[in-house]
Amino acid sequence: MDILFLSDNTAPADPRVMQAVTDAGIGYAKSYGSDRWTEEAETLFRKEFGEQALYFPVLTGTGANVISLASVLSPYQSILCAETAHIACDECGAVERFTASKLVPVKTPDGKLKPEMLKPYLAHIGFEHQSQPKAVSISQTTETGTAYTPDELKELSDFTKQNNLILHIDGSRIANAAAGMSLSLKQACAGADILSFGGTKNGLMMGEAVIFLNPALAESAKYVRKQYGQLFSKMRYVSAQFIPYLKDCIWLENADRANAIARRLADGFTDRGISIKYPVNGNTVFAHLSDVQIKKLSEKYVFYVWDETENLCRFVCPYTATERDADGVLTLL
Amino acid sequence: MDILFLSDNTAPADPRVMQAVTDAGIGYAKSYGSDRWTEEAETLFRKEFGEQALYFPVLTGTGANVISLASVLSPYQSILCAETAHIACDECGAVERFTASKLVPVKTPDGKLKPEMLKPYLAHIGFEHQSQPKAVSISQTTETGTAYTPDELKELSDFTKQNNLILHIDGSRIANAAAGMSLSLKQACAGADILSFGGTKNGLMMGEAVIFLNPALAESAKYVRKQYGQLFSKMRYVSAQFIPYLKDCIWLENADRANAIARRLADGFTDRGISIKYPVNGNTVFAHLSDVQIKKLSEKYVFYVWDETENLCRFVCPYTATERDADGVLTLL
Amino acid sequence: MDILFLSDNTAPADPRVMQAVTDAGIGYAKSYGSDRWTEEAETLFRKEFGEQALYFPVLTGTGANVISLASVLSPYQSILCAETAHIACDECGAVERFTASKLVPVKTPDGKLKPEMLKPYLAHIGFEHQSQPKAVSISQTTETGTAYTPDELKELSDFTKQNNLILHIDGSRIANAAAGMSLSLKQACAGADILSFGGTKNGLMMGEAVIFLNPALAESAKYVRKQYGQLFSKMRYVSAQFIPYLKDCIWLENADRANAIARRLADGFTDRGISIKYPVNGNTVFAHLSDVQIKKLSEKYVFYVWDETENLCRFVCPYTATERDADGVLTLL
Amino acid sequence: MDILFLSDNTAPADPRVMQAVTDAGIGYAKSYGSDRWTEEAETLFRKEFGEQALYFPVLTGTGANVISLASVLSPYQSILCAETAHIACDECGAVERFTASKLVPVKTPDGKLKPEMLKPYLAHIGFEHQSQPKAVSISQTTETGTAYTPDELKELSDFTKQNNLILHIDGSRIANAAAGMSLSLKQACAGADILSFGGTKNGLMMGEAVIFLNPALAESAKYVRKQYGQLFSKMRYVSAQFIPYLKDCIWLENADRANAIARRLADGFTDRGISIKYPVNGNTVFAHLSDVQIKKLSEKYVFYVWDETENLCRFVCPYTATERDADGVLTLL
Repeated sequence: MDILFLSDNTAPADPRVMQAVTDAGIGYAKSYGSDRWTEEAETLFRKEFGEQALYFPVLTGTGANVISLASVLSPYQSILCAETAHIACDECGAVERFTASKLVPVKTPDGKLKPEMLKPYLAHIGFEHQSQPKAVSISQTTETGTAYTPDELKELSDFTKQNNLILHIDGSRIANAAAGMSLSLKQACAGADILSFGGTKNGLMMGEAVIFLNPALAESAKYVRKQYGQLFSKMRYVSAQFIPYLKDCIWLENADRANAIARRLADGFTDRGISIKYPVNGNTVFAHLSDVQIKKLSEKYVFYVWDETENLCRFVCPYTATERDADGVLTLL
Repeated sequence: MDILFLSDNTAPADPRVMQAVTDAGIGYAKSYGSDRWTEEAETLFRKEFGEQALYFPVLTGTGANVISLASVLSPYQSILCAETAHIACDECGAVERFTASKLVPVKTPDGKLKPEMLKPYLAHIGFEHQSQPKAVSISQTTETGTAYTPDELKELSDFTKQNNLILHIDGSRIANAAAGMSLSLKQACAGADILSFGGTKNGLMMGEAVIFLNPALAESAKYVRKQYGQLFSKMRYVSAQFIPYLKDCIWLENADRANAIARRLADGFTDRGISIKYPVNGNTVFAHLSDVQIKKLSEKYVFYVWDETENLCRFVCPYTATERDADGVLTLL
Repeated sequence: MDILFLSDNTAPADPRVMQAVTDAGIGYAKSYGSDRWTEEAETLFRKEFGEQALYFPVLTGTGANVISLASVLSPYQSILCAETAHIACDECGAVERFTASKLVPVKTPDGKLKPEMLKPYLAHIGFEHQSQPKAVSISQTTETGTAYTPDELKELSDFTKQNNLILHIDGSRIANAAAGMSLSLKQACAGADILSFGGTKNGLMMGEAVIFLNPALAESAKYVRKQYGQLFSKMRYVSAQFIPYLKDCIWLENADRANAIARRLADGFTDRGISIKYPVNGNTVFAHLSDVQIKKLSEKYVFYVWDETENLCRFVCPYTATERDADGVLTLL
Repeated sequence: MDILFLSDNTAPADPRVMQAVTDAGIGYAKSYGSDRWTEEAETLFRKEFGEQALYFPVLTGTGANVISLASVLSPYQSILCAETAHIACDECGAVERFTASKLVPVKTPDGKLKPEMLKPYLAHIGFEHQSQPKAVSISQTTETGTAYTPDELKELSDFTKQNNLILHIDGSRIANAAAGMSLSLKQACAGADILSFGGTKNGLMMGEAVIFLNPALAESAKYVRKQYGQLFSKMRYVSAQFIPYLKDCIWLENADRANAIARRLADGFTDRGISIKYPVNGNTVFAHLSDVQIKKLSEKYVFYVWDETENLCRFVCPYTATERDADGVLTLL
């Protein structure tokens, strides 16, 4: 059985990243981030995102999201997010538990929030019977595989700034978004205050980072990271991975490859009369298969039937996927 | 400047462990623990701790402790621990924040709890004005470098069982305790219900585990681990480390080496008339140095002056320390 | 300006209830509920709800809801409720903050949950990436003024029992529901496990109660009430109010009166061609007024324009409202 | 059996307070504090504590303490308090649960904190492995019956200001402290930032208040109060009690009476050779009785044997206690 389209975290680490990990295992190093790999990674992140950016390496995507949001929320405040958001659907209430705040899921057609969807939630500012909106959290790319264009980002960040809200991006697939739109990483999250920068899904062994694009928001972050159990002692092993990932543009190379395969899959589906539900802006494809097609494909592949009521199937392309892998699926259909 | 005695997490991963990590990076694998490395690690843990044992790999020591305790506590219950415990002193209130429970620090002469110290805290069972004791958390070895003997463990676990309490062990240095007393890992935590099994301080790149010795207590553990952000997607990279660590007895070899160097340091201190504060049962030595000695040593070594009021200095030996390293310190004094 | 239709908590306490409060202020009494008024109130609640029922007097409606739910939920579990529920909309995230659980708002046409609306939320039982549904919380009457019939309650409670869920009722207006359907209080919440029994909105000075209809769920309730700050020292003053309220059927008399005025208002609206949005099953009426009508009415009355997009206005009748009060509104329109 | 010395909350409400409650039950009033009684009470509190003071009526002592502290703490911060403090010993971990912060109990000889006891806890400011001290919470009078003199308060508040800490007073017996030292209420809490102002123990039916002496700290208080379930709908009934309590100096009259009886008890004990453990600065007396005396007294009185290891007995005098009540105890001994 072939599991590669099940998720992009089924792939192993990129060999170049793995080499960096091995190379970091030399000699003693101060723990908890006072090491030269962490210093170098921070320099690289600043080069990417601007001199003001602050880098907090963490261990998991849930960790990045929870630490981002818990650093800026009080428990009487709320977070607005798409009802399809990972923090709303797939983190077992981690954000609610750790922040003690309210998560407000907002209906969207394609996983993307727009200012007009958010406005109704700002009706009760200052009214103590209701949680007070403080952050808007979006995903880039979204869980439906769509991406916010720079214009859409600008519209949203203008809105959040005007309304004294913090804009957080869950960027577990930020590389795919940037690559898909031929943008720099910075452009792909322009206007955001805090970024959960993903690495594990795009070639890292293990490693995410909270990037404070707005450093004024980071005051409590180091404590929050410690309290959430993600101040890792041998931090060099995480930071070391980000060095080639950023310096050698592994992020772009890998994301480009994954996106291309997704594109190939999507085009192939369309050619075969299979409808694609959402625009394919990254490495994820949602397609409506027939019962027969699902049955046939299931004999060789493991993949998610995302919504059984509409036979909606999800295919996520790891950075290691090949044209042959895509063609394998297509020829079966 | 030599930092090796600052902490045992300054050392790099054991090369055999690192090889296992590299070897695990082959091919696709299901994420979140449905992989063959995790399966094999679980088998090895069961061989070590008994067939009933349940293995939950996690990422940090704070993670292991928080997930252990949050799996069994309700917020109206409390945890009794030594006032020197890592969970009480060095985790930034992580346990209190995530469990919402009360941590009750108990005074001890040497970091070890005894039943008679705990009894007074059981005076108000059923009285709703007071948090209800539910767990006793001890460290093996303790933060002072002492270890519980099997008799002491038995006495404690008899007490906790009689009083309907859960016994948790923070075993971030469980290998050092077992090695130091020539016990098996199982014997070194006999009677406990839940074990935070440490790996990172003794040769792993990154990896701890929550081991439920009493599997009836694990019902909510998988959700708690997810909520605490430590359900790692590419879990094979953590589990792979435990395989040689347990199978090839790396745990014992490394702990023995670290303990021997600590022994050598302690003996050397004593020979030089320097008083040792606590029995040295593992890889940690607390010694009272003079002002002159601290000054002298600080020119070449970075180490903690644990308590400035009594010139108490801490030396923790990593598994990579050598006799020469110890002699380097001793000859300076 | 007349505020009486703004909410039913604008009314003063019933004189008979106030007399009971005054009468309770004689002599010393043990605090925290070990008093004879609390004993008598418990006896009366058992007479009303069955011998197994447990009575926990509390101070506010939010208190009753939070203590009910926090007594039975772990933070990895979730609560399903109508998206119009008071706990979802009007308690500033109190439930989320204190339980650390996830609140899942479910869309309904009229504020009432039905099993078929809940089924989709049970799709991921045992899957650690998602909060695990544990409780269903409904309001009787609902925030839209509708009530669950005994058949609807049975259908729901059969469903919750089959699915190992707890059924909680926010009964801040349980008296209005029972009176409106000519049911006993017990019948109006048949099948529920826990009831937030409201008193303040229907004639008490201050007083609500958590009633465990299923006493097996009450194990942690007394601690939770204390932790939530609602173990009131001079509890006799709360319990004393429930004595005449239950014994002399003040609950029924007052609810009948309030419901009758709501009925009169609703009929009058209909007669004047004003559409009523929801069936009027209690003391609350939602009517679509025209801009002119709103403007006119606002000159004399203070009331909520609940939804400005559809000119939906809310009128809640306190137990003290009179036919003349209703006619005052109607003649203005 | 006579229970009056068991606690000061065994007494009924003062008849003048009860009259104010009854008088408030006239006509409709806006709920949640937009009523004229609340306005008048606020004016009186400002007269007492200064124009800047903010008044938040709440329902219980635990409520006042939790809302005070939760309004100003983030979960990575800690609260320093005496190890005998009510928030540490008698609130079932309510503060820890709701603030998610760490409570740090500090040893004291008599329940009173001094700057030199606090200094050692400030050693790790900025170090993310440790909770960061943010508030100092003291009780006036303390749980041992002692009171802080104005000089002691000044010393403490100078210290907290210098160290950027917030000074909170649990004033459940603030009236007894002020009366005992012939101070105004303001003088008895001079230098504090936030006061839990107690009423229930000194003649109110039910009613406490959070007073922000430093109004800059109150930004989140209204939300926190709502989340903690103490935004009471018919708030006039609480505020109405404070009006005569402050305006007619009931607080002083009642506290003077209770203190005088405590004085009489203490003097009588001393005359009979019974040792008093702590200075009697309010209405509480701790005395070392013999086994025979305890036995004898227990035939007629219910009281707390506070510490069985030293036969330490607590007597708290309610405002209703008389000289005859004190003499009743003394003649038995």
